Amino acid sequence: MIESALSEVFTQLIATPKWICLSSVNAHGIPETRAMMNLANPEWFPTLQAFFGDGFTTYFSTNTSSEKVQQFIQNPNASVYYYDEEIFQGLLLTGEITIVADTRIKNAFWQDDWLMYYTLGVNDPDYTLLKFHSRAYKYYNGNYEVKSGAL
Amino acid sequence: MIESALSEVFTQLIATPKWICLSSVNAHGIPETRAMMNLANPEWFPTLQAFFGDGFTTYFSTNTSSEKVQQFIQNPNASVYYYDEEIFQGLLLTGEITIVADTRIKNAFWQDDWLMYYTLGVNDPDYTLLKFHSRAYKYYNGNYEVKSGAL
Repeated sequence: MIESALSEVFTQLIATPKWICLSSVNAHGIPETRAMMNLANPEWFPTLQAFFGDGFTTYFSTNTSSEKVQQFIQNPNASVYYYDEEIFQGLLLTGEITIVADTRIKNAFWQDDWLMYYTLGVNDPDYTLLKFHSRAYKYYNGNYEVKSGAL
Repeated sequence: MIESALSEVFTQLIATPKWICLSSVNAHGIPETRAMMNLANPEWFPTLQAFFGDGFTTYFSTNTSSEKVQQFIQNPNASVYYYDEEIFQGLLLTGEITIVADTRIKNAFWQDDWLMYYTLGVNDPDYTLLKFHSRAYKYYNGNYEVKSGAL
């Protein structure tokens, strides 16, 4: 367990960005990173907040056809990075990605304006929901200090 | 070689951000990402621009004592990610990191305000310069298309 002061900082860092970096390891062992919508951002996705407790388990919607999906099937190792440029603070969560098979959860996450990504709607086979489970954190506090630990 | 129209887009994407994401693979095979100063940003580091030709070779200053330095010694695989939130475009460069041993190059990169990171100055043993060499790119054009290729 992390101390409660740190936990509050993490909660804020997780809720703030619109876009966050999701990293995978490709078939050549090289890390790949891309910006993803931060579904845990309460202003952007107010209807999804019940799915995000402490923020250490998070979700991403993506195209089934994207290379990242194949990468996570081959190698579930992943990290999620939250950065606030205003305060120079960054939080890295390391863990694993699984693909959500439960259609009830996929349905519950569905947003109508995602039709621009998945033209067939919630049942579009190209709509994939990824679940990220954190195992550890590494936090840069903006003042030359890094704190890290298990989750 | 990439087509010249794409090359111009990449040049712009590389020059724009202040902070960019550098990713490594840790000893457990998990990707780690952190924000780094974009030394190729001409407004922020005007004196360093001669070092950045096409932008596919880039540099990072960091603390020798940071975990990323040990990670890159163990495993040079790396990626650098440039994202422009305004236009929804992202450029991922994958390749390798080496540690710059040439003190002339380290001296040439030195910025006086880096004393806040390396209190002993340019000869501080905690001052490390990393060189990133790109092998391939993956570009998201903001309009649901990904282009990729070798460099």
